[in-house]
Amino acid sequence: MTRIRFHEGLDELKQRLITTAGLAERALERAVRAYAERKPELCAEVFEYEDRINRNEREIDQLALDLLAMQQPMATDLRLILAVIKANGDLERVGDQAVNIAQRVVDIAALPAVELPVDIPRMGVLATEMIHRALDAFIHGDTVAAQRVLEMDDDVDALNHDAFIAINRKLQQAPFISQQCLDALIVARNLERIADHATNIAEDVIFWTSGEDVRHAFGSGKVTE
Amino acid sequence: MTRIRFHEGLDELKQRLITTAGLAERALERAVRAYAERKPELCAEVFEYEDRINRNEREIDQLALDLLAMQQPMATDLRLILAVIKANGDLERVGDQAVNIAQRVVDIAALPAVELPVDIPRMGVLATEMIHRALDAFIHGDTVAAQRVLEMDDDVDALNHDAFIAINRKLQQAPFISQQCLDALIVARNLERIADHATNIAEDVIFWTSGEDVRHAFGSGKVTE
Repeated sequence: MTRIRFHEGLDELKQRLITTAGLAERALERAVRAYAERKPELCAEVFEYEDRINRNEREIDQLALDLLAMQQPMATDLRLILAVIKANGDLERVGDQAVNIAQRVVDIAALPAVELPVDIPRMGVLATEMIHRALDAFIHGDTVAAQRVLEMDDDVDALNHDAFIAINRKLQQAPFISQQCLDALIVARNLERIADHATNIAEDVIFWTSGEDVRHAFGSGKVTE
Repeated sequence: MTRIRFHEGLDELKQRLITTAGLAERALERAVRAYAERKPELCAEVFEYEDRINRNEREIDQLALDLLAMQQPMATDLRLILAVIKANGDLERVGDQAVNIAQRVVDIAALPAVELPVDIPRMGVLATEMIHRALDAFIHGDTVAAQRVLEMDDDVDALNHDAFIAINRKLQQAPFISQQCLDALIVARNLERIADHATNIAEDVIFWTSGEDVRHAFGSGKVTE
């Protein structure tokens, strides 16, 4: 087992994490679109993406394990590998949340269409952007970009809080559409959870890159020299 | 760095995970009690536990990192360390969910008390029991016990589904208590998420112990010989 082969493995690990993040973003984007356009037929794709994310999660864990077993990794490489394992877990849950949204879409599609005072598409765009930026921050070991993800989380939290208030008010005026209201509330919370997962990844970037100069380890193809 | 010291570190790692799980269980138990008894004063404890869980999470990650850096671990030890990192992340989220429940309690305590057709205490007992059993399965590398946790998850999912239907019906009869209904729905979903985290831990027990005879590594004080 040479150090070159080890570094090829590390690169593959990062590449697979990026692939998983791409799948998570697409699952999320499809789920939100299915909700906004009332198209339950888009949900099949969400379930498919989630299935691929789950398989990737196990493969990434296994690859991380193989890399750790291969040779005595340097401290910076170790931090990177553990950060990948953590981010990998978060992305798997983003997939779960996208599936939860898709399940609400299936529920809601059987009900009359109604106008609700909740901006799900906006929350969806923000959450997707957060996942994307968190991964970018991760790959480049960019703590400034990671910090920005934490700030975006406040916006999603505020939208989620607004959604609660608006739905509560709507329910009192129009209890006959309570099921659509509950579905919208749940979707808003799913998106808030997804934003939390992006936040976890961003926090991990800050944690794992702190105390040691490992930005290089995160940020380049050749991980250590 | 001797192998004996390494094994002492592994034991400490497991011990700390058990401590974190205990904190998560107590946070959850307090949050559910605060809800059932309408006692927002119990929530301060939940926030305190969550804070301790978060600090433990970082310490466990750091210890895991130190152990990996200490020497070339055996394959079984590696699997154990990675499983701890995963379970650690799940427990941290259980703490988050307990805090979410506590926040709903604070919200609901300012509103008139109402009877709702949702058995939150039962869901709480089940979710707490699942966390406890998942950790037990983890510590003993017991895949049969882990399998039982997966089955309990179906019960919590069913209760969560029932909660949605019951709250939806209640809302149509009594829209003036919509806020209490929404809070109860959210608490039910928080508990369902906690059960999912227990399920993740149980699934990890099955994954990490599969393919290799590492039950001994999970199940005893002396991890490998």
